[in-house]
Amino acid sequence: MTITNGQINGHASTSTSSPSEEVAYYLNETTKIIQAWIKKGENEDEPVSRFTSSKEMRQAVKLSLSDESCSNEKVLQSMASLLDNSVNPWTGRFVDKLYSTPMPIGIASEALLAAINANAHVISAAPMLCLAEETCVNGLTSLCGWNPTYADGMTMPGGSMSNTFAIQTAVNHSFPAFKNEGVVGVITELMGRRNRSAKASKPLIITGADSHYSLEKAALACGMGLNSVVKVPCDIYGNMDVDALDRILEGLYQDNEGKGEKAGFPFFVNATAGSTVTGSFDNLDQIANICDKYRSAYETPLWLHVDGSWGGPVLFSSRYRSRMAGIERCDSLTINPHKLLNIPHQCSFVLFRKGDVLENNALDAPYLFHANDGDVESDTAAKLEESEAALRRKNARHEGPAKVNFGCGRKGDALKLYIAWQSKGARYFGEHVERGIESANRIVQYIKTDSNLSKRLQLAQTESSGAPLFLQVCVRPALGANASVEERSKATQYVHNAIRQQRRFAVDFAPLGKGQGDFIRMVTHPFTSFEDLVSLVTQIADFGDDYMHLKGI
Amino acid sequence: MTITNGQINGHASTSTSSPSEEVAYYLNETTKIIQAWIKKGENEDEPVSRFTSSKEMRQAVKLSLSDESCSNEKVLQSMASLLDNSVNPWTGRFVDKLYSTPMPIGIASEALLAAINANAHVISAAPMLCLAEETCVNGLTSLCGWNPTYADGMTMPGGSMSNTFAIQTAVNHSFPAFKNEGVVGVITELMGRRNRSAKASKPLIITGADSHYSLEKAALACGMGLNSVVKVPCDIYGNMDVDALDRILEGLYQDNEGKGEKAGFPFFVNATAGSTVTGSFDNLDQIANICDKYRSAYETPLWLHVDGSWGGPVLFSSRYRSRMAGIERCDSLTINPHKLLNIPHQCSFVLFRKGDVLENNALDAPYLFHANDGDVESDTAAKLEESEAALRRKNARHEGPAKVNFGCGRKGDALKLYIAWQSKGARYFGEHVERGIESANRIVQYIKTDSNLSKRLQLAQTESSGAPLFLQVCVRPALGANASVEERSKATQYVHNAIRQQRRFAVDFAPLGKGQGDFIRMVTHPFTSFEDLVSLVTQIADFGDDYMHLKGI
Repeated sequence: MTITNGQINGHASTSTSSPSEEVAYYLNETTKIIQAWIKKGENEDEPVSRFTSSKEMRQAVKLSLSDESCSNEKVLQSMASLLDNSVNPWTGRFVDKLYSTPMPIGIASEALLAAINANAHVISAAPMLCLAEETCVNGLTSLCGWNPTYADGMTMPGGSMSNTFAIQTAVNHSFPAFKNEGVVGVITELMGRRNRSAKASKPLIITGADSHYSLEKAALACGMGLNSVVKVPCDIYGNMDVDALDRILEGLYQDNEGKGEKAGFPFFVNATAGSTVTGSFDNLDQIANICDKYRSAYETPLWLHVDGSWGGPVLFSSRYRSRMAGIERCDSLTINPHKLLNIPHQCSFVLFRKGDVLENNALDAPYLFHANDGDVESDTAAKLEESEAALRRKNARHEGPAKVNFGCGRKGDALKLYIAWQSKGARYFGEHVERGIESANRIVQYIKTDSNLSKRLQLAQTESSGAPLFLQVCVRPALGANASVEERSKATQYVHNAIRQQRRFAVDFAPLGKGQGDFIRMVTHPFTSFEDLVSLVTQIADFGDDYMHLKGI
Repeated sequence: MTITNGQINGHASTSTSSPSEEVAYYLNETTKIIQAWIKKGENEDEPVSRFTSSKEMRQAVKLSLSDESCSNEKVLQSMASLLDNSVNPWTGRFVDKLYSTPMPIGIASEALLAAINANAHVISAAPMLCLAEETCVNGLTSLCGWNPTYADGMTMPGGSMSNTFAIQTAVNHSFPAFKNEGVVGVITELMGRRNRSAKASKPLIITGADSHYSLEKAALACGMGLNSVVKVPCDIYGNMDVDALDRILEGLYQDNEGKGEKAGFPFFVNATAGSTVTGSFDNLDQIANICDKYRSAYETPLWLHVDGSWGGPVLFSSRYRSRMAGIERCDSLTINPHKLLNIPHQCSFVLFRKGDVLENNALDAPYLFHANDGDVESDTAAKLEESEAALRRKNARHEGPAKVNFGCGRKGDALKLYIAWQSKGARYFGEHVERGIESANRIVQYIKTDSNLSKRLQLAQTESSGAPLFLQVCVRPALGANASVEERSKATQYVHNAIRQQRRFAVDFAPLGKGQGDFIRMVTHPFTSFEDLVSLVTQIADFGDDYMHLKGI
């Protein structure tokens, strides 16, 4: 084998073009392919998906890999076919999940990020990615009413990871023994310091019954186990019952011997801002009051985290940010711009009101972090104003963001939010959220007032005002007053399947709390057209009629 | 506020163009910006970085966000300036980290992925992303000599996360009590079943002293604590001392009362294939022999994981795959195509020889996973051939990959490897790895035989054959025979800083094991030209002379 000696080489095994030409070639060709696919999506007859089941998909599509290279033409054809066989959110009829189409500039940002191809684990390798992240974190923490000098945060690969990292940081910060001795160290520390039994010293995570399952996954991932999650009952809308939270905390703290069925020491409360199924917002102010009460009564840290993966962007809207009133008192927040703000997947932030809490996460890796990184003169920090010292500590942390998280390599996802924010402005994001909420309100009003639909559809979880909780509209065939919950769920699943078979819409169903059974959950994304929503609810009603006809109801 | 009623709308707040037009506009403009930046990198005078420190960077670059939108021209200018202020790997002189430039088609793949913008948490939302992942996993596990019918795996956001997930899966699979009761459950289970003390029942992770710090981060993340990591000494090259491993395991298993300084129950051995600093490969066959011995002697699961984040791609090379001989006997493997295979960051896989181990990770989320997903007829699986049943179980798992990992949302990173593999072929990847290794060999030979360099530079960790271990070349000024390790490290840091100030190369330094002190570590990427490597080692020698002159050596 010969080693070519030219400038950068080896990029094109069969051509003599330079990397810049090759990159331009592939990007230009791919742009055409992407544009054609999006254009198909803009055609009102384009199905949202080629396949009605993964079984059908597996029979129709075979991917394979070879030892040998193939021609550029063949690769580009294959890329086009990968798109054609994908779910097409550009139809506007993908109302299945909490994300939809990305902002157009987002796709370009992703290409930019790939061209830079830097790892945001140390600032020296990825200065602009780290600076863009810092800038976005400042912007987002300011929206929380937190002082950006003290606040800190970073992107994580998804909301679940952000929630998990908040729990890890909380336990590691609150209990010094965790770092070396893990969960056992926490238990030992609590037993000794508080004269509690081992069972009563088990660290507990408190969260609403309707919160995201990532809280349980986090308990599993962190070695606490599923039994360390205590679920607080929610009302019929999905909001945490704050009185129940009060009673549960009181009972747990007082149970020094661990005699209760659920026993342990609560160290983390998770409140949800925009739940997955209904879009409910827990009352942060009331929950913060309760946390304050127990922090003071038991002289203990009690971390208040907010999972705003979905609902967090209401902070951009002057009209709706009151739904998160109290956020200024919370310790950490997860927010996913890749959901409601239509930044390309993934873009999730975990934010901390007091960034110093991250310090205890630090592990050294002498091959990666060097003592003199950044020249931050931390030794003189003691003589400085408190805020200036805090800023220097933060800058020192930001020399190697990987030092204080629980991974190492980091994609610079914040760049995508930075570019979109710069392009559109914060005001646009607020209006964007408002468009989604107004759209949900409008289709609910339409269902309620349309003579053809109002009696054939049952809406769930509307508040007394008659407005939906957020961007989710949960609806199912009305059946009759006497139909059982099981029957209603069956009808919902029938409708869901019929919609899937038709391939015009992608929409999901989910069970609602308090045993209400399954509902179709449509997500009224800000980019979703009202006509499409009307068409979908009409389908739900029509397929519901089919079901009743079939069953002789 | 009015809701526009058209087809998809709201994408462009100030224009009337369709999303397909907008996406094409931004991608076309960004392609020009990217091409220009890469072209700059191809200029041999282009510095690898604008800044010599983050302090300088912070003074020169201020990013800010506004309430208001800005013009497209301004955003595009800002994108160009973000590139200009980034480290430019396209110079070919970024030999600082284990990644470098992405393959040109990779940048296009990233744009494709952003256009699809699907979440690979369920196959129904991301059929092609999940299928591409399955195809790559089959390809990679075949290279391990594992039966793809039984093997399984998935992408994770980085090698650290892959290693962490392997540990979580291992402990969760090996100890049924972990799921509900966490680390405490494991200890209780071991105490009861094996009549060991609590201290002797602490689950332990065994890894080489020169392995990546993510193993310690994982122990912290999983609630086991840093003290649950037992470091096996390595030889001067960084290879795990297999006799020491044997002695350590023997001592730990026999210490039922937990009297040793390090006590506990080993459940996980991590071997490294391509260490971070020297590129050493632990002897997998010998380590597997030792694991077999203790599995049998103590009738216990002992998981053997391989961190091949960096070195894993040798599996593609018929010439060098023997460095991982024994991989066919290991339980799991981390491999990062975003490092040595130049797939855009991030692209990391964690692979399991027996995919069924993932099953116990499953948590239900009724709003996400539905019972009838995929129509896989698992109830009839018992009547099937074992391999057909295994395949059906795998397909059932793949209906919702998020069900069996510890997060939820997943970016479809495998698509980037799939497209590159399809384009270049497996053989190319093998040759690519060989180019990097040959390049390291060649520059080491050059240093040894060049009369101008051989006496001025000290090479580290060369094997008796005289060849470097992998793609890293660790080198520093020779100083004299009597110089202390401290003096040699100081000279290395002086040289490192001088190189950074010059901004022609980006290269890192790191301490080598066994107290050898700091060396400059250059990574001879397959795309790095030999001329550049010669130029860099000449700089190291010249700056070393400067240091000696300054110090009067």
